[in-house]
Amino acid sequence: MKATVYYGAGDVRVENVPDPQIQQPTDAIVRITHACICGSDLWFYQGKDQWQPGWRTGHEWMGIVEEVGSEVRNFKRGDRVLAPFAFSDGACEFCGKNLQTSCLQGGFWGGKNDGGQAEAVRAQFADGTLVKIPDAVENDAAMLKKILPLTDVMSTGHHAAVSAGVKPGSTVAVIGDGAVGLCGVLAAHRLGAARIIMLGRHDNRLAIARKFGATDFVSSRDEQAIQEVQEMTKGGAESVLECVGTESSMKTAIGICRPGGAIGYVGVPHGSETINLSRMFQSNITLRGGVAPARAYIPELLIDVLADKIDPSLVLDVTVDINGVPDGYQAMNDRQAIKVMVSV
Amino acid sequence: MKATVYYGAGDVRVENVPDPQIQQPTDAIVRITHACICGSDLWFYQGKDQWQPGWRTGHEWMGIVEEVGSEVRNFKRGDRVLAPFAFSDGACEFCGKNLQTSCLQGGFWGGKNDGGQAEAVRAQFADGTLVKIPDAVENDAAMLKKILPLTDVMSTGHHAAVSAGVKPGSTVAVIGDGAVGLCGVLAAHRLGAARIIMLGRHDNRLAIARKFGATDFVSSRDEQAIQEVQEMTKGGAESVLECVGTESSMKTAIGICRPGGAIGYVGVPHGSETINLSRMFQSNITLRGGVAPARAYIPELLIDVLADKIDPSLVLDVTVDINGVPDGYQAMNDRQAIKVMVSV
Repeated sequence: MKATVYYGAGDVRVENVPDPQIQQPTDAIVRITHACICGSDLWFYQGKDQWQPGWRTGHEWMGIVEEVGSEVRNFKRGDRVLAPFAFSDGACEFCGKNLQTSCLQGGFWGGKNDGGQAEAVRAQFADGTLVKIPDAVENDAAMLKKILPLTDVMSTGHHAAVSAGVKPGSTVAVIGDGAVGLCGVLAAHRLGAARIIMLGRHDNRLAIARKFGATDFVSSRDEQAIQEVQEMTKGGAESVLECVGTESSMKTAIGICRPGGAIGYVGVPHGSETINLSRMFQSNITLRGGVAPARAYIPELLIDVLADKIDPSLVLDVTVDINGVPDGYQAMNDRQAIKVMVSV
Repeated sequence: MKATVYYGAGDVRVENVPDPQIQQPTDAIVRITHACICGSDLWFYQGKDQWQPGWRTGHEWMGIVEEVGSEVRNFKRGDRVLAPFAFSDGACEFCGKNLQTSCLQGGFWGGKNDGGQAEAVRAQFADGTLVKIPDAVENDAAMLKKILPLTDVMSTGHHAAVSAGVKPGSTVAVIGDGAVGLCGVLAAHRLGAARIIMLGRHDNRLAIARKFGATDFVSSRDEQAIQEVQEMTKGGAESVLECVGTESSMKTAIGICRPGGAIGYVGVPHGSETINLSRMFQSNITLRGGVAPARAYIPELLIDVLADKIDPSLVLDVTVDINGVPDGYQAMNDRQAIKVMVSV
């Protein structure tokens, strides 16, 4: 089968690799139909993560179950399934707490594990990980595309909103106009935010933010952005969604958060960072978030996608086939695409 | 009257100053009967805060109302009252949210305002700030001493516990064996924690921690402490109370927090600090806390003190009179005292 393999900075290749096999009785083999390229894939693509040549890529995917191990109870051949970007056993303390990303036996797709930018994967802990998609939408290509972002960016945007304590009537600021930030806007809108301020600078992305529910836009950065949001909100936003993951974006988040408010942070930080703890302390600002337990959120979000209450597919603005994955990376790296769908 | 005045590092003096007068109709004049010296007073005492010579000291006090302004409704001459370490108007958005430390008209005792290490104070926003103590305990010196720590350290320890999400059955770690850390133990115990691990190194303080409900003790520091707590708890404590406020103590807090857990931080940070955000992110660790809205907590804690359910007075191990305040600072600075009570 074909799979995407990492070779080095700027170098991912689609190659023929051995077909995946059941190795554990809790495994399933899933034939991939849809995958994505993620903004966080750009970290290794740009050589900023410690990746090894030969590792597989892609942590966002859905497909059709082809075979299941002897202990898999919830799925059978032919089932359409969706995977969160992390697998989890569904049985440990943290899975029980709906924090599947801390699963004691879990891990992430790609790297040493099979990746989703491929024709098939060995899906570990199928019962703990996968979510069934109703048969009724099997031939609805548009609906399948709407479901796909639940694998990561929509669940991650939702995690930011939940972590930031968004509730009906909230004033929310969203930092970052990437796919996660845009989904954060949609999630905040879904949770009933009254005002959603988008901090971003790309017209095409802001247009999506507006469709997703953003009410105000700030295109400046750093101190200027802090000042503008402080003025617009007369003292800061109660909930801030930090969807970038740089020291500068976190500084902005702290600067625009209202006393007693919360920052939901889902932008991936890289190591230790300098934080203005004094300001957080003086104003009782909470910092909450991290890697999103997408598995916990997918069932709830899937209901709203199926009911056409939310449509996160707008963030998928470019589609490639499996052979086009390297071009998809390049397009995202060049900011020619917000987020690339791989139609396998 | 006598009041304590800051002159410089290591130099506080008790001097005669003009008696306080009503300046606003919302003021009260309170004759101080009890005050404390706070661990956070040592920051200016050690020359680490930007303090000006001539500023007044002391933010923890209680006393008897001597006079009230024309708009004060809740208090009259002769009332025994307790003040949180910050004053607040009781009327703004943040007072309404029980975040009185962010009151739009509020401030802290001492500095340019009157301080409590004195014979009297002008108490701004008396109705929004002060809490009445029942007449029944007026002659109960031991009870008054038990109430006194609610002005700051007990409320702050409680804020740490609440911010860290302590609930019945929780496993809690408390960093810092100062008065706030000890009160954090008592607060966690009061909230029903099943296991309370105290990180500290002073036998006399650990003895109090044990009386307050600590079940386990770790005397090592930094990496060694992290390893020990990780082993004891098989993966970290759900709730960590950070009651020191240094970069090293925050590092320990992040290192011993269980995935999905929370750090309640009340140790005063000084500026920006480097934080291991990557570990927080991977494990969805929440950082919540800040300057404690003591005014919000005092009524609830006072009920339990009056009912003899909690006795935080054990942290007040040295008593001085008003003339002894400079010696009290010296004793705390030399770690000869945990916390000094001033019997005015």
